[in-house]
Amino acid sequence: MFIHKTAHYLPSRRIDNAHFEAINGLTSDWIIERTGMYERRRSTEDENTNTMAIEATKLLQEKVDLSEVDMIVAGSYTFFDMIVTPAHAVQRYLQLANIPVIGITTACSSFLNAAEIVQGYFAIGKVSKALVILSEQNSLYHNEADPKAGHLWGDGAVALLFTKERQSDKDLTVVDITTSGAAHVSKGTEGVMLRPRHGGIGMPHGKDVFINACNYMSTQTKSILERNDKSLDDLTYLVPHQANLRISKNVMQTLGLPEDKALSNVQYLGNTGSAGSGIALSEHWEEYKQGDVLVVVVFGGGYSYGAMLLTLD
Amino acid sequence: MFIHKTAHYLPSRRIDNAHFEAINGLTSDWIIERTGMYERRRSTEDENTNTMAIEATKLLQEKVDLSEVDMIVAGSYTFFDMIVTPAHAVQRYLQLANIPVIGITTACSSFLNAAEIVQGYFAIGKVSKALVILSEQNSLYHNEADPKAGHLWGDGAVALLFTKERQSDKDLTVVDITTSGAAHVSKGTEGVMLRPRHGGIGMPHGKDVFINACNYMSTQTKSILERNDKSLDDLTYLVPHQANLRISKNVMQTLGLPEDKALSNVQYLGNTGSAGSGIALSEHWEEYKQGDVLVVVVFGGGYSYGAMLLTLD
Repeated sequence: MFIHKTAHYLPSRRIDNAHFEAINGLTSDWIIERTGMYERRRSTEDENTNTMAIEATKLLQEKVDLSEVDMIVAGSYTFFDMIVTPAHAVQRYLQLANIPVIGITTACSSFLNAAEIVQGYFAIGKVSKALVILSEQNSLYHNEADPKAGHLWGDGAVALLFTKERQSDKDLTVVDITTSGAAHVSKGTEGVMLRPRHGGIGMPHGKDVFINACNYMSTQTKSILERNDKSLDDLTYLVPHQANLRISKNVMQTLGLPEDKALSNVQYLGNTGSAGSGIALSEHWEEYKQGDVLVVVVFGGGYSYGAMLLTLD
Repeated sequence: MFIHKTAHYLPSRRIDNAHFEAINGLTSDWIIERTGMYERRRSTEDENTNTMAIEATKLLQEKVDLSEVDMIVAGSYTFFDMIVTPAHAVQRYLQLANIPVIGITTACSSFLNAAEIVQGYFAIGKVSKALVILSEQNSLYHNEADPKAGHLWGDGAVALLFTKERQSDKDLTVVDITTSGAAHVSKGTEGVMLRPRHGGIGMPHGKDVFINACNYMSTQTKSILERNDKSLDDLTYLVPHQANLRISKNVMQTLGLPEDKALSNVQYLGNTGSAGSGIALSEHWEEYKQGDVLVVVVFGGGYSYGAMLLTLD
């Protein structure tokens, strides 16, 4: 299984840290020290998870023909519409018939759950070209003035074409995927939540989320490499969930890896949820070289986690 | 692949048709004529999609040990929490570690998408006992006074244990599953919607939903039987999505089948979304006999559809 092409869509509106100083008194220095973020993107009134998913799909269409796509999976935890999901919006846009179309939410881990679901459909033999989309409009549900988490969130979307057979020598090979819930640990079901009818996005236990994110992302990176007879020395890039630059730095430190091996966009995009690591993978697509080894590693609310090992063969 | 056991949870509060006459003037006769519904269940203030999923799981635990469950998939379009999904709530309740845990929404079709996702995980070899849960709290998002759709919705949940290997001679064999989006047709992305920040559940194009539901559910029933060398005469029970008794009757008429071959709970449970057909399958579990042939057929917002062929061998 391979990732053939990717494209990402970012809303044009930029929200800098000064925006929050005016709202709740958090200074830019404080936000940068705690999160590494100096800016994030925000959708307009006319945008939502469905429109951003379509925009990312249009950008992907500029790179590759999507008429043979035979499955669409979209991850989001900020659904504009929980019935007409981004997957359905994109199916309509592409006018494709008789294909599985699924919306999923495993919070910030949805990218890898979507990839693993695709792996399953490839294994059954029902599908050979799957469009995976992650689309998040955190601004629809965030509490902007919340001093604990209001400044963290950004909006954005990414579209990736997964194929069963290799399409080109630039394709990333999906060597292994693993995903899991971690709802059973610690503050698993209350560390971070999005209750549309009860307060929107909240993160009452940020420290617990931080500790578990650092722990799971470092452990999962090591174990997916080891399980595939590779070591941390083999790793070209780590693509962590883009929650907070301090989490990414902590993971790199724990693993004994130089910080510049982590691909990061959280500084200028904020936490774009399940889309963040996919956008990072997409942003650097042209830089990957023969022999590169990448691990995408995620941790999200629920809790949930996962890792995906990619190589450019 | 097999369904070994099922259990369903229904909130105890009953809402009769007189409730709506007081709110918006719809008479019980009118509601019964248009929908076949005389009652529906409604959760209490303390209940939600997560608590109902746990209640259904507890009832399933009374029938079968769940300690070896190695995957949880939960479908819902009425998420109490879009980050901590019913799948995550149940993982925490069961205290199971290192297993895939996924929340999905394909509206009223989620039961069959969940089953097909499980089929994929079985095919990869990662999973052998999957807990599938459908949990809907329509009352969290409905517009009760809406004369077009306020009276349609009910709350409820169902839990089903899917296994790769046969567990008993009462297991239903999953012969075939097919699912698809139908967002590309007609009013696919606007017939029915649930926008948490923009009005909740709406069904502005009920007639279009009705026509497509009748069309897809009859066509899919025929085609899944034919594809597996069975005829309509072989069918013991049809388990349609429980949207509206008129839709179910229309499907039976189109197929030339007697109405009593359709398992229906919509009369006393209302439209319980993705849970409805699963609850119907569960309600009649003890009645299935050697040689029975069942088709579960669904149609949902998005649009989306699917069919599953089951036999008791």
